Amino acid sequence: MEKSASNWGVAAVPDSWNFKPNERLLGLMSLSVRGVLARIKAEMVAAGGGGGRPVIPMGHGDPSAFPCFRTAPEAVDAVAGALQSGEYNSYSTCVGLEPARRSIAQYLSRDLPYELSLDDVYLTNGCAQAIEIICSVLARPGANILLPRPGYKFYEARAVFNGMEVRYYDLLPGKDWEVDTDGVQALADKNTVAIVIINPGNPCGNVYSYEHLAKVAETARKLGIFVIADEAYAHLTFGERKFVPMGVFGAVAPVITLGSLSKRWLVPGWRLGWIVTNDPSGVFQRTKVAASIRTYHYICSDPTTFVQGAVPNLLENSKEEFFQKTIKILKESADICWEKLNGINGVTCPSRPMGSMFVMVKLDLSCLQDIKDDMDFCCRLAKEESVVVLPGRVVGCKDWLRITFAIDPSSLEDGLDRLKSFCLRHSKPAQ
Amino acid sequence: MEKSASNWGVAAVPDSWNFKPNERLLGLMSLSVRGVLARIKAEMVAAGGGGGRPVIPMGHGDPSAFPCFRTAPEAVDAVAGALQSGEYNSYSTCVGLEPARRSIAQYLSRDLPYELSLDDVYLTNGCAQAIEIICSVLARPGANILLPRPGYKFYEARAVFNGMEVRYYDLLPGKDWEVDTDGVQALADKNTVAIVIINPGNPCGNVYSYEHLAKVAETARKLGIFVIADEAYAHLTFGERKFVPMGVFGAVAPVITLGSLSKRWLVPGWRLGWIVTNDPSGVFQRTKVAASIRTYHYICSDPTTFVQGAVPNLLENSKEEFFQKTIKILKESADICWEKLNGINGVTCPSRPMGSMFVMVKLDLSCLQDIKDDMDFCCRLAKEESVVVLPGRVVGCKDWLRITFAIDPSSLEDGLDRLKSFCLRHSKPAQ
Repeated sequence: MEKSASNWGVAAVPDSWNFKPNERLLGLMSLSVRGVLARIKAEMVAAGGGGGRPVIPMGHGDPSAFPCFRTAPEAVDAVAGALQSGEYNSYSTCVGLEPARRSIAQYLSRDLPYELSLDDVYLTNGCAQAIEIICSVLARPGANILLPRPGYKFYEARAVFNGMEVRYYDLLPGKDWEVDTDGVQALADKNTVAIVIINPGNPCGNVYSYEHLAKVAETARKLGIFVIADEAYAHLTFGERKFVPMGVFGAVAPVITLGSLSKRWLVPGWRLGWIVTNDPSGVFQRTKVAASIRTYHYICSDPTTFVQGAVPNLLENSKEEFFQKTIKILKESADICWEKLNGINGVTCPSRPMGSMFVMVKLDLSCLQDIKDDMDFCCRLAKEESVVVLPGRVVGCKDWLRITFAIDPSSLEDGLDRLKSFCLRHSKPAQ
Repeated sequence: MEKSASNWGVAAVPDSWNFKPNERLLGLMSLSVRGVLARIKAEMVAAGGGGGRPVIPMGHGDPSAFPCFRTAPEAVDAVAGALQSGEYNSYSTCVGLEPARRSIAQYLSRDLPYELSLDDVYLTNGCAQAIEIICSVLARPGANILLPRPGYKFYEARAVFNGMEVRYYDLLPGKDWEVDTDGVQALADKNTVAIVIINPGNPCGNVYSYEHLAKVAETARKLGIFVIADEAYAHLTFGERKFVPMGVFGAVAPVITLGSLSKRWLVPGWRLGWIVTNDPSGVFQRTKVAASIRTYHYICSDPTTFVQGAVPNLLENSKEEFFQKTIKILKESADICWEKLNGINGVTCPSRPMGSMFVMVKLDLSCLQDIKDDMDFCCRLAKEESVVVLPGRVVGCKDWLRITFAIDPSSLEDGLDRLKSFCLRHSKPAQ
């Protein structure tokens, strides 16, 4: 029997149903890295896609598909063991399994001047859910939050969806993308609840010094606002400057740290992140931020229980050699990226990447003909060269590009050579 | 070195930080099954916990910790295989991996008069996130949603958090918990966007007939509202009435089905659920509901990629014997529950459970002395007998209880015997 609605003898549905879509929600897609990359790829495919060459994905921060960025076998074994034990098929406890939270507290405390307890740790479905929870918890009518520009737009999307006002402070390209703390002070008012800093930097590839983080903490203290430290790229540094967790300054200003297994272990698909309150002075207890985070966990979904169950094993058995191998490849890639970009006419890279997986590059449209803006650049680059990079507007900087160098080094060289060909082909002729 | 904030020479933090907690959020905890069960258990532990006997957990719908409710080895193998392949460490595509969505479309189409396509399927982090997404998508200022009473309060929590008004329609205990369709028509107005029905029923253990579902669909059509069919307990039926998916009536009124692996495969901790649009007439496209669901996926977190990757194998290789074994134990447990409850003075069970994992029981407080209400009953039962059941108020019915029979049959008998002892001990003496 052919299956169709008409076989069931029902009349056509009425034309009007009581639904008006939420335009605020529909408008958020343009803020999303995923949404914009999906659009660029769709246009590339529709156009026939750059002569059949393999696509070079320099648009998003997920190198895990490349063999050289395969996660550690110990990590896979830890998760497989938890799954196969049959002990983790149930719902998790509300803010996450205690052994997992305890081991994350210990792991993070190694780099802090005080000990975190398991009560400071809340497990999340990756860093994305950590951002969702924090924005939901901090939002109230009239509140505003300070975000970096350039920055990771997921914050804006979640803040706006929760009705919170977003104010952008600048990162300074001439000063290794430091926070413009004077600008921060000018922006904040009595309704400002927090400042977000991302270190190591997405999208800028910067790493902040101890002194600069201290200055950010002092600024937050002066303003009476919380610091949200997005440390998704923690420890992924390959310059002289090592990663310093913002939690070091938790007694200067209360710090909420967001992190995950995704980047350091190269497993963004495993969806295990955390929110950590770094607050030796107990401000988050007194102001009920801690209670609010706990309550939100009662009305949201949890990370996969057996991945939670694997965390203690995974953290204990991770080998230094695995981390070093990742850093070595990232350093090699970052160096290739810096050198090749400096040889391309039409783009300028203000500073050498020191961490994370990205670098920001300024387009010089005056050297390029027929290119309207960053979006146009990225769409045509994808169509003509099968190279995907992210238009800077998605991270708050029109006519810039965010380039991911965390792909295997030979693909990266290929991709940057294609970028160079593209820029050459579109160069204005010398006058 | 002892680690403490004072070693770092920082001053104490100021007393006032710019944060006022979101009281609406903090108030939601009392709506949560998890929150209330956590409170009952905490009081039980604080009181020394019923003389050291093992706790009988008849409060929540998660039997997976009992050996007789262990999931199928084929399901574990499917997930372990996907994990160990290394092919699913990356971020998922936005609404979920295509092979997983295609296989869920095929799995659900078996019971429908039309074929679902993969574009009808959106993967979620369990049914909880499916509810979160639907409430976020449907909410707009002034909108209201119709929820069943008794019902699953997670809907109210998510709807209220998104600023949507909640209106309760009654399920009729004298009519096997059917929907009071007259009441539904009286409640709805031009701002009503949808009606939620839960079938098989949580918390009532009912299963709706084809005819009753048709009547609900006609009612929704007349009102011009969507049907949200929560089918988390799909196929878990053990009476004469088989499960009929609401999607069968998708051409009468557009239906959004919510489901997951959690209950049928006994793996709530794996966090793999779905939203499915059953809409042969294309209403969800026209009204941008489909676009809104897709957009929300750009700003929320995804289910674990390798669990998504396992779905096709898992659905194909699940054996009928595994499902039958679960049903056999659930039927045995439901029968024990029904018979034992009928022998307890002080509680009344209006109808024999036919599906899901729960039954609703009315307290007769006039037979019991010193018991104030359902919350008091549950707290004292936990303290005195180490038996945890859910106060009916959490599902919208004060002075009722929700009892989970989905535990191993010998524990269930023990738990119900303790419940009987408790009621006997608290009975009013005969006049």
